[in-house]
Amino acid sequence: MAGSTYGTLFTVTTWGESHGSALGAVVDGCPSGLSLCENDIQKYLDRRRPGQGKFTTARREKDTAEILSGVFEGRTTGTPISIIIRNNDQISRDYDTLKNCFRPGHADFTFDQKYGFRDYRGGGRSSGRETIGRVAAGAVACRLLESVGIRITAYTKSIGPISVPDGEYDFTQISENPLYMPSRSFSEEASAYLESCIKNQDSSGGIIECQIEGIPAGIGEPVFHKLDAALAQAVMSIGAVKGVEIGDGFRSALAKGSDNNDAFTFDGSRIRKRTNHSGGTLGGLSDGSTLIFRAAVKPTPSIARPQHTVTSDGKEIELSIHGRHDPVIVPRAVVVVEAMAALALADLLMINMSSRLENFTAFYYPKDSKERRP
Amino acid sequence: MAGSTYGTLFTVTTWGESHGSALGAVVDGCPSGLSLCENDIQKYLDRRRPGQGKFTTARREKDTAEILSGVFEGRTTGTPISIIIRNNDQISRDYDTLKNCFRPGHADFTFDQKYGFRDYRGGGRSSGRETIGRVAAGAVACRLLESVGIRITAYTKSIGPISVPDGEYDFTQISENPLYMPSRSFSEEASAYLESCIKNQDSSGGIIECQIEGIPAGIGEPVFHKLDAALAQAVMSIGAVKGVEIGDGFRSALAKGSDNNDAFTFDGSRIRKRTNHSGGTLGGLSDGSTLIFRAAVKPTPSIARPQHTVTSDGKEIELSIHGRHDPVIVPRAVVVVEAMAALALADLLMINMSSRLENFTAFYYPKDSKERRP
Amino acid sequence: MAGSTYGTLFTVTTWGESHGSALGAVVDGCPSGLSLCENDIQKYLDRRRPGQGKFTTARREKDTAEILSGVFEGRTTGTPISIIIRNNDQISRDYDTLKNCFRPGHADFTFDQKYGFRDYRGGGRSSGRETIGRVAAGAVACRLLESVGIRITAYTKSIGPISVPDGEYDFTQISENPLYMPSRSFSEEASAYLESCIKNQDSSGGIIECQIEGIPAGIGEPVFHKLDAALAQAVMSIGAVKGVEIGDGFRSALAKGSDNNDAFTFDGSRIRKRTNHSGGTLGGLSDGSTLIFRAAVKPTPSIARPQHTVTSDGKEIELSIHGRHDPVIVPRAVVVVEAMAALALADLLMINMSSRLENFTAFYYPKDSKERRP
Amino acid sequence: MAGSTYGTLFTVTTWGESHGSALGAVVDGCPSGLSLCENDIQKYLDRRRPGQGKFTTARREKDTAEILSGVFEGRTTGTPISIIIRNNDQISRDYDTLKNCFRPGHADFTFDQKYGFRDYRGGGRSSGRETIGRVAAGAVACRLLESVGIRITAYTKSIGPISVPDGEYDFTQISENPLYMPSRSFSEEASAYLESCIKNQDSSGGIIECQIEGIPAGIGEPVFHKLDAALAQAVMSIGAVKGVEIGDGFRSALAKGSDNNDAFTFDGSRIRKRTNHSGGTLGGLSDGSTLIFRAAVKPTPSIARPQHTVTSDGKEIELSIHGRHDPVIVPRAVVVVEAMAALALADLLMINMSSRLENFTAFYYPKDSKERRP
Repeated sequence: MAGSTYGTLFTVTTWGESHGSALGAVVDGCPSGLSLCENDIQKYLDRRRPGQGKFTTARREKDTAEILSGVFEGRTTGTPISIIIRNNDQISRDYDTLKNCFRPGHADFTFDQKYGFRDYRGGGRSSGRETIGRVAAGAVACRLLESVGIRITAYTKSIGPISVPDGEYDFTQISENPLYMPSRSFSEEASAYLESCIKNQDSSGGIIECQIEGIPAGIGEPVFHKLDAALAQAVMSIGAVKGVEIGDGFRSALAKGSDNNDAFTFDGSRIRKRTNHSGGTLGGLSDGSTLIFRAAVKPTPSIARPQHTVTSDGKEIELSIHGRHDPVIVPRAVVVVEAMAALALADLLMINMSSRLENFTAFYYPKDSKERRP
Repeated sequence: MAGSTYGTLFTVTTWGESHGSALGAVVDGCPSGLSLCENDIQKYLDRRRPGQGKFTTARREKDTAEILSGVFEGRTTGTPISIIIRNNDQISRDYDTLKNCFRPGHADFTFDQKYGFRDYRGGGRSSGRETIGRVAAGAVACRLLESVGIRITAYTKSIGPISVPDGEYDFTQISENPLYMPSRSFSEEASAYLESCIKNQDSSGGIIECQIEGIPAGIGEPVFHKLDAALAQAVMSIGAVKGVEIGDGFRSALAKGSDNNDAFTFDGSRIRKRTNHSGGTLGGLSDGSTLIFRAAVKPTPSIARPQHTVTSDGKEIELSIHGRHDPVIVPRAVVVVEAMAALALADLLMINMSSRLENFTAFYYPKDSKERRP
Repeated sequence: MAGSTYGTLFTVTTWGESHGSALGAVVDGCPSGLSLCENDIQKYLDRRRPGQGKFTTARREKDTAEILSGVFEGRTTGTPISIIIRNNDQISRDYDTLKNCFRPGHADFTFDQKYGFRDYRGGGRSSGRETIGRVAAGAVACRLLESVGIRITAYTKSIGPISVPDGEYDFTQISENPLYMPSRSFSEEASAYLESCIKNQDSSGGIIECQIEGIPAGIGEPVFHKLDAALAQAVMSIGAVKGVEIGDGFRSALAKGSDNNDAFTFDGSRIRKRTNHSGGTLGGLSDGSTLIFRAAVKPTPSIARPQHTVTSDGKEIELSIHGRHDPVIVPRAVVVVEAMAALALADLLMINMSSRLENFTAFYYPKDSKERRP
Repeated sequence: MAGSTYGTLFTVTTWGESHGSALGAVVDGCPSGLSLCENDIQKYLDRRRPGQGKFTTARREKDTAEILSGVFEGRTTGTPISIIIRNNDQISRDYDTLKNCFRPGHADFTFDQKYGFRDYRGGGRSSGRETIGRVAAGAVACRLLESVGIRITAYTKSIGPISVPDGEYDFTQISENPLYMPSRSFSEEASAYLESCIKNQDSSGGIIECQIEGIPAGIGEPVFHKLDAALAQAVMSIGAVKGVEIGDGFRSALAKGSDNNDAFTFDGSRIRKRTNHSGGTLGGLSDGSTLIFRAAVKPTPSIARPQHTVTSDGKEIELSIHGRHDPVIVPRAVVVVEAMAALALADLLMINMSSRLENFTAFYYPKDSKERRP
């Protein structure tokens, strides 16, 4: 349980270090018969790839996905899907000076405390590159969700103090700016803010918002594996995320019940909620509304500005981190949030299939046949 | 996987409905030799018990814990600890009128969607009474944590707009007011606010904060089972919680790296952080600082004020919920947050024991003996 | 992970000691809508109850099942089903002399080694009474399996050297003799054999065979969670079981491929095997044939005949175990084998529902409706 | 849960098909600091490699292990160890004729039933090549076990009717003959027997026995995760295994209690058993004796002799399987049994570390330091 496996039925195991020879993921439990090719995965990897704009690192990784198993003649076979991404552009000597010192905001100190030593090159397993395996696996989960009409859209809600207000989203803009913001004007404002951060050898935090449409009601498991709880774990497990909220989230702490409750209504064909303060869950189960949640992302800890820290033998030093680092983590984490949400959801959808006896018996005694399976 | 089991090594399985004959928990994997009696559990249950003040329901449950297994001559034996709490004061007829209608903000609709029908009495399994099993199990986890010097303190940070500022905590006040606020004056202000809510047949949300001291560095598992992620799942799985943040949380989204990074220093005996914006974790592992997190709790959905909703056959109605309901969930959820944090932490501490080979070999070849185990 | 939980989707957690106040089980993940009452469980418990004939202990437990949760108006709700069985007839002073000595063939020594001490009364958690929770949970699993036409039949194949040959089974006899043998004459012979064991203050081993009909083909998961592997774990986890074999089992080690392979044929409506050397699985998945396996059960370790052993402080002694002990474990373990097979199978049937994309999509977009779920 | 992950703390996920581009394993949860190189793994892979003698297939795979992550400067880092083995010598056209027919004794039919179609090349995921990942991971587990003095020795007990009697083992012979038998004369006899099988276009079953020395007492978890149960699952999950027994196994079903019980004695330094009918476990926990178990392996199902079967569209045919197939599975499965036993045991040893409070507190408050961790 070094913690690199996620999920119960739809599972992913990721592996790999920043400066090892490769990173990858093994997806197990994906249903057979899903159309899948390397390009389906590559499209997601390209969204988190470095070197795409002025706010992402100059490290020039192609991050090319290769599928090694689990797909035959273009379709998944039901067996584990192993995906590998080779590391090409490691410059490990960059990190030699960091070998014995604990970078503020990084996991250097805690990994040493836990394991006694660490692969210090590029942060090793605690590097942002660890998310490559998540994104590759999330791409498979997204394909599965699409097959039942579920669409996940994540985007940059805010960078530092620059936040797109709820009513001013233009989703067509998300892929039109390097910050993945749903607004042209706010993305320009945020760009200017980031330029000033760079100028000051500093970095910025921000907020990622995610909307999921098409989730049928009833998904999630009561008590410990609520849909909200599963999403919270999935999203909080992304390195830089420091907070997760669903629906009105922390605003609901300020609200009154009469405002926060969503009234039910019957629209002639189905029962739905008039408002969506809950963000799409009630009692930990999806309620048929759009699922909406937000993740708070801390500023990139690697900054050029000198910082105080200590070496592993306790010597106090001033540290300036040079090299290739984004001034903000948010844009590249957008697709990671989508991936984690997809993984959590795919798993809960599969688990949900056996919730009712009538579904269980209908499965093993299909209606359209007099015979039982098989 | 109806989701009622939590944990990997230190596990809890809870069971029971609001108006069934009993509720309970089975704690499995607790180490042998822990001193434990029913009173250790009762103290925690008493903190979540209704009927203790003007802001908690008049339902008069004693909620008495009985230990049925796993303890022999005052100590845990290493086998499952079964704890049962009988329901005494159910008034099920209160709920007959609610049988076929979907209360706003409750799980009535989603449970029906998932399971086809539900035990509608008092919310059944989705009732707040479900947390009794969590608190009973959490009490055992707290005993275990105490044995290695870990202390968990949760309290009410805010109720509606009334919030105790960071610098004005008086921890001695927490147990002195029915709202578990660390401030006498703010608790009085919050009481007045809640009185106005009651007068308006309304309810209020709030924020619970939790501080944990004494966690050694290195606890948590990288990637999917980070300490932050485990806590986020554990706390978000509490019915009314809509957001979780650790350390500076959502404030870190507004910050710059130079502010948000915590500098390391060496105090002569050990390496520590000068500040604690991270809230006690780095890279998902505890960093030796105080762990601090907050949970946003939504307002009680059951309010006396008429609300619009529909019946299960789609008829639009106005619903006024009478009966015994707190105007705020927060104070009674404080101990539930402690319980969930304790369960998450106990599990990760046990998992951590095999992280290093030197600990593994020292365990099976103890230093103080020439012989190997046993 | 003290190991008292079994299963992935259909799970059971058992608890309780031989001389504690109660034993029980929590079944989680059972689909909603299954008709279930206490008598459904009681019928199974009665089959393992002591005091029913001359070859079972005189301890007179009623072993009455009480359902505390998860059932509403006669049907399961999808939430955990807590079942409790009170202990009534403990005579703990019987065991005071055994407190500090290690009975041969029992877990006294190993529990002390693992946990440092033990609840020595009646073997504590390692008593055969531990299986009560399994049988109660297994009864629920059997109800679920019946709903899709799966029937489990276990019986005593042999007691010591007295074995019913394969061709001479009369299943109507199983419930007609206290040994649960599918043959009147062999059960009489076995009874005589057991009488001689008792006369010699000794005990006997035996073999339980189990046949399961109605399993659709394709159940089980490749690699580590094969149907055979799941059954092997489930059955080998019963205290006295020392061997498990499926189909021809150890005989297939003597066979040639030309004998051991089962030819496929098409009978006009479906493909089936002409023979069943494999015992109903191929590649770890059910093959549509009757599943058949056997479990070797060791002799009751508690015998009146004096045995050599040591005390916990290393003193060599001669021990005669008096009290209430069966001369053979097999008959009472027959229903435990059924229970464990049912638990393993119910879980794998639920897991199997998401194996194919076409089933996944048909579930979320039901054919008979134009709408997607819900 | 397609079932390709095994273990709780020390886990392995395997992936890969017979004729895909590669196979591999991800080992997660291995303690940091274990000395590990590719050659440590290669030694185990070489023992299961084909093409090594007249009784193994002529397929000439090098099966070279490459470690892609989790090892830094010769030691494990505590992060997942990804091991990849490229397939080189696939001749897929061999299998084109088998595409639409169900080979007797193989998983063709059941995979089609479960998944709707299959990667038919070389048996796909159900091929014996699937065990490569297990052996690679098992090699890591063996390294870990060696570090605490545990040694696993598996060997061929019998091939068809040729069986090495218990008293006549010569362990130095195991690596001296291609059948891994602990006897020169019996291996010669078995070779002659296999030659006659080949001549008759047939194959043979056999028995693998495994002895494990150095396991401390108390390993295993009571109830469902007994050491015996874990081993039974692990070993029965190997494709061709049809039975597992521990200690006297099926012979104990014939025995009397007075024979089967192992007397305890005190040898001046520690308590031990005089005999070992139990095979090294009592109550599911290791008892300090040598652990000994056996696995029954069925004959190779692929035989050249014509067999009756059907095509996927129900046509009856006679099938002769040519190509590269061993006349016996046993010798190459010996190392797979070792690997699975090592994986099961490594996991249970890690889980066992938190069984006692005194160990838990000693870990977090080390004796040799006044300070608590860290």
